[in-house]
Amino acid sequence: MSQARKCLAIVLAAGEGKRMRSSRPKVLHQVAGRSMLAHVLDAVAQAGADALAVVVGPGRDDVAAEVLREAPHAQVFVQAERLGTAHAVLAARAALAQGFDDCLVLFADTPLVRPETFAALRAKLAGGAGVAVLGFEPENPFGYGRLLTDASGALLAIREQKDASPEELRARRCNAGLMALDGRKALDWLSRVGNDNAQKEYYLPDVVEIARADGAACALVIAPAGEVLGVNDRAQLAQAEAEIQTRLRRAAMEKGATLIAPDTVFFSHDTVLGADVLVEPHVVFGPGVTVGDNVVIHAFSHLEGATLADAVTVGPYARLRPGANLAKAAKVGNFVEIKKSEIGEGAKVNHLTYIGDASVGARSNIGAGVITCNYDGFLKYRTEIGADAFVGSNCSLVAPVKIGDGALIGSGSVVTKDVAADSLAVARGKQMEKLGWAAAFREKMAALKARK
Amino acid sequence: MSQARKCLAIVLAAGEGKRMRSSRPKVLHQVAGRSMLAHVLDAVAQAGADALAVVVGPGRDDVAAEVLREAPHAQVFVQAERLGTAHAVLAARAALAQGFDDCLVLFADTPLVRPETFAALRAKLAGGAGVAVLGFEPENPFGYGRLLTDASGALLAIREQKDASPEELRARRCNAGLMALDGRKALDWLSRVGNDNAQKEYYLPDVVEIARADGAACALVIAPAGEVLGVNDRAQLAQAEAEIQTRLRRAAMEKGATLIAPDTVFFSHDTVLGADVLVEPHVVFGPGVTVGDNVVIHAFSHLEGATLADAVTVGPYARLRPGANLAKAAKVGNFVEIKKSEIGEGAKVNHLTYIGDASVGARSNIGAGVITCNYDGFLKYRTEIGADAFVGSNCSLVAPVKIGDGALIGSGSVVTKDVAADSLAVARGKQMEKLGWAAAFREKMAALKARK
Amino acid sequence: MSQARKCLAIVLAAGEGKRMRSSRPKVLHQVAGRSMLAHVLDAVAQAGADALAVVVGPGRDDVAAEVLREAPHAQVFVQAERLGTAHAVLAARAALAQGFDDCLVLFADTPLVRPETFAALRAKLAGGAGVAVLGFEPENPFGYGRLLTDASGALLAIREQKDASPEELRARRCNAGLMALDGRKALDWLSRVGNDNAQKEYYLPDVVEIARADGAACALVIAPAGEVLGVNDRAQLAQAEAEIQTRLRRAAMEKGATLIAPDTVFFSHDTVLGADVLVEPHVVFGPGVTVGDNVVIHAFSHLEGATLADAVTVGPYARLRPGANLAKAAKVGNFVEIKKSEIGEGAKVNHLTYIGDASVGARSNIGAGVITCNYDGFLKYRTEIGADAFVGSNCSLVAPVKIGDGALIGSGSVVTKDVAADSLAVARGKQMEKLGWAAAFREKMAALKARK
Repeated sequence: MSQARKCLAIVLAAGEGKRMRSSRPKVLHQVAGRSMLAHVLDAVAQAGADALAVVVGPGRDDVAAEVLREAPHAQVFVQAERLGTAHAVLAARAALAQGFDDCLVLFADTPLVRPETFAALRAKLAGGAGVAVLGFEPENPFGYGRLLTDASGALLAIREQKDASPEELRARRCNAGLMALDGRKALDWLSRVGNDNAQKEYYLPDVVEIARADGAACALVIAPAGEVLGVNDRAQLAQAEAEIQTRLRRAAMEKGATLIAPDTVFFSHDTVLGADVLVEPHVVFGPGVTVGDNVVIHAFSHLEGATLADAVTVGPYARLRPGANLAKAAKVGNFVEIKKSEIGEGAKVNHLTYIGDASVGARSNIGAGVITCNYDGFLKYRTEIGADAFVGSNCSLVAPVKIGDGALIGSGSVVTKDVAADSLAVARGKQMEKLGWAAAFREKMAALKARK
Repeated sequence: MSQARKCLAIVLAAGEGKRMRSSRPKVLHQVAGRSMLAHVLDAVAQAGADALAVVVGPGRDDVAAEVLREAPHAQVFVQAERLGTAHAVLAARAALAQGFDDCLVLFADTPLVRPETFAALRAKLAGGAGVAVLGFEPENPFGYGRLLTDASGALLAIREQKDASPEELRARRCNAGLMALDGRKALDWLSRVGNDNAQKEYYLPDVVEIARADGAACALVIAPAGEVLGVNDRAQLAQAEAEIQTRLRRAAMEKGATLIAPDTVFFSHDTVLGADVLVEPHVVFGPGVTVGDNVVIHAFSHLEGATLADAVTVGPYARLRPGANLAKAAKVGNFVEIKKSEIGEGAKVNHLTYIGDASVGARSNIGAGVITCNYDGFLKYRTEIGADAFVGSNCSLVAPVKIGDGALIGSGSVVTKDVAADSLAVARGKQMEKLGWAAAFREKMAALKARK
Repeated sequence: MSQARKCLAIVLAAGEGKRMRSSRPKVLHQVAGRSMLAHVLDAVAQAGADALAVVVGPGRDDVAAEVLREAPHAQVFVQAERLGTAHAVLAARAALAQGFDDCLVLFADTPLVRPETFAALRAKLAGGAGVAVLGFEPENPFGYGRLLTDASGALLAIREQKDASPEELRARRCNAGLMALDGRKALDWLSRVGNDNAQKEYYLPDVVEIARADGAACALVIAPAGEVLGVNDRAQLAQAEAEIQTRLRRAAMEKGATLIAPDTVFFSHDTVLGADVLVEPHVVFGPGVTVGDNVVIHAFSHLEGATLADAVTVGPYARLRPGANLAKAAKVGNFVEIKKSEIGEGAKVNHLTYIGDASVGARSNIGAGVITCNYDGFLKYRTEIGADAFVGSNCSLVAPVKIGDGALIGSGSVVTKDVAADSLAVARGKQMEKLGWAAAFREKMAALKARK
């Protein structure tokens, strides 16, 4: 979305969020696998913002660090005192002073606004408005500032609940808090906002009347109520998560994935699904998952940082951790954990297995209960299994170790030395039998239990 | 539902389903564990259809194969060109010409219509109607054909959205697409449907006016909107799945099963539950599961093709695959996979185990981490465990192998030879100890890490 | 809630519950991890009841046993014949005769009434009313007794559906069945209830008119419809479960827990969560779980009778059974079952492991696939692992056995003897290799398959 107009986005992220009852700052709480702040930074970037200014509370190094992780070019400003939203915006005075065409003001605790909506606000500025305010129609408008418009739909004022006349209270459109300002006038207008009110705070909505007094037109953009949900407590955080999951599920289905039970599948913001993917009920995607075409993900699977090539099948109960890379038509079955490992084309790891820091060659079969022993309490080591190998059930592969192409490992072996290609390796005790021992043991134990 | 009247059901299954964005034909997409087509074939069979004709698209051998798998006596007809629904019905001209009393016309992508509803359409024919149309009342009728009736409720016409007058658009009843026709006149009426319209297609609803012109009465049957849901994309497929799951859950509860959280339990179309079954949250039933009385299925269990006798307990995290047969009071615990195996009365397989191609005798106890090694990369072999046996934890049973009644296998053994009844068998290495070795190793590794 | 007024609560638990289609008495069916009866007994205890009388059906020793388990001081009365609700209350005549100030009458199959609501009924008595009836406003009042009030809100009568005039049927408030009675008059009033009706039953609501005839004021308390849900079948049982889960989830979020997907998390009535707990989707809490601050519970975890200290991380797929006690910052990973065991501070049990009847010392690391062999078919034995120990993957620890502090156990070992502190112990077979054997085997098997 390249535009001739230059745009600064000011993200207010200084709220304390006491109602979250958390030691973590509110805007770092996550939805769909990343912080609310990251969602907002991403959305304005997609809406074409050229510069980003984020206003954080004093001492909030954690919030500043998240800003720079997600948007390294952003400027971070500190609002030293909490004197209202207009005051917060002015903490970014240095950025405002650079004279952008458009200035978007938004909130890091309002994570669901879509880039299209930010773009619509900017379009109003491009169309000549001095201010463009984002509104919505809540089911119950009580407590929200009402948006008063004239017959042409131009915004006249934002009236707070307590100041509104009975007729004004009938307005169904309310202020969502976000707005776009003419970037060449924003600093002037914001500087003229006063604090002559009960709380002695500088309120951002007052900028509307100031702009109008200057002769600027004020426009309105209406978003669905779900999009402007502000998160102030954990219930609203859950609501935001639900809303974004609904979007992600709908998008997945539109692209041609079958979700048998969409409400039980949880995506990350960045999940990528190929064509004709089938996802059974009860599946969780953490961040960083890419799924190819014709993949089947059975129930109760948990994927994170994993790449699944075409025609892969996983689960039920597959746990793919970061660095799990499954080649075409590979199969990972139940109660299997894969971490930082390559699973070759057509290879099978079907039952009760842990594969970590390993590579499994094409067409190899890893038996049930196999464990790659990749850790000695201090360092991690790699296991390399060739193509067409067969590792018997319950084997322990003590890394670093290599199993050659076509090798066969007998069940229950503890493999500590490399195995040559096409060899059989066995490492286990000899079977011994004591006839009648079990019967005698049963009698003894039964007698013991009887005495108790 | 035996009736004197002979009935032909014509199932239209030729739609391309482009909005599904799938390489699989639409009607083969599944709900509740079988294809939409199979649902429809089953429903009309239950409604007493004596003959089945299925119209498929050209080259759709996969659809034809599914028809014959589900209804071996059905006739398959190919609609060579897509010239409208009436044209599609006429692809089954040879079946129509056999002179049935009733002719049901239905759609394979409308999988939720109940047998009772088909029977209600047929009853209208038996009552003298020439045509009986299935209608419904959508929340938003926009886009649907309106059903115009006279004061007596008789159907006058089906008016498409674009052709309807403002008053006609106020009709709340809409055409669901399905209908029943007098089987002795259907071929004549259908042959008279023209294609004098914008799309140059032959539309099935036109048959109503043709029949009325012939003096035939046209009747109406109204179904709940959820029942006539047509599936055109993945979101509607998920809706159909949700609707059928709601039915299956309600039926299970009415029969006396406790579903702690019905919305998290997914049944297959053929799941059979006994009396006083308890199903915890998050359980998935694939096809072919039969559950006896007083069975408890704990959370996160996944069952498919399994038979559970009375008083069985499974899960949490039990994975029962096809051929898992659990006898009375057997117990399968967490992270256990059972495949093609008999688990005897009162036997226990409680933790982290894979039992495949095996039999476990009554009252036997299989320890944690036991694996039946049933596969050598080429063939599958059987493991037979007798009654009252005790297999210690982490054992590998290398099939083919037999463990006798009352035998005891020491933990961690790899059993490759048969074990006699009442014997003790052990197959493991001798325990050796190096005093102080671990402390020295720690020092060495700590020094190594420090150097890094 | 201590009050000067003495209160008797009479709980009617004699209903047969035929529509449950269960061999278990209705009031013993569970919601949120305990019987409906237990919920009701707990709620009236919280509402300050000084004495409890429970009326059970003849021969219902199981119900009586549950009463005494949950409320050892309660008196159990048997209603020998089913002659109506007023008759059922009179089965507790001996308790009523003791002359309490307040008498609460409630139903064991109405498990969601909150203590505050019982207290509100009692407050009406304290304010001078002789009877206080609990009402609600159902969406569809058909079939419920209507509450007829005068302009002041005083209750005039309870009119059954079939006896009500058209005007009376317009009353939106209906009788929930519960009431509070002046304890000094209740016995008299109840004794005067007649059975001159079609069913020849003694109806509790008739007490309102009798009390009014005596000059007593009758008051009304209105509860939300969800709170007075009576459970008569499994669908209503599921509804009750859903309602109580909604309450428990809301309470957890209000206290500062993040529930990513509240609808997929199932709590027990007694689950205790600390501050800043994160619960991923698809988690089930059985009874008796206490979770400290900053605990993370990953998806697909199942906890019951477990205690998690601060900063613990469990799951995904962690199964904590009764007696699992995890010390600060302990970590239990995927496909791990812990039963009756102490896991020390910072200890890790990350993959595919069963720890039962054991203690694991601080900072110890338990490798993947480790099993404590705690059972020999007759008795259970303990495994004691010291601090800073490292147990290699796939080890079997045959209890009773002790692993000293700082000891290291080689992968795949079967440990049957105690291991000294700081020692290395290994118990496994020697690795042997047969070059070319696997290639020859493949050829042989391929030939065999070709012949088939």
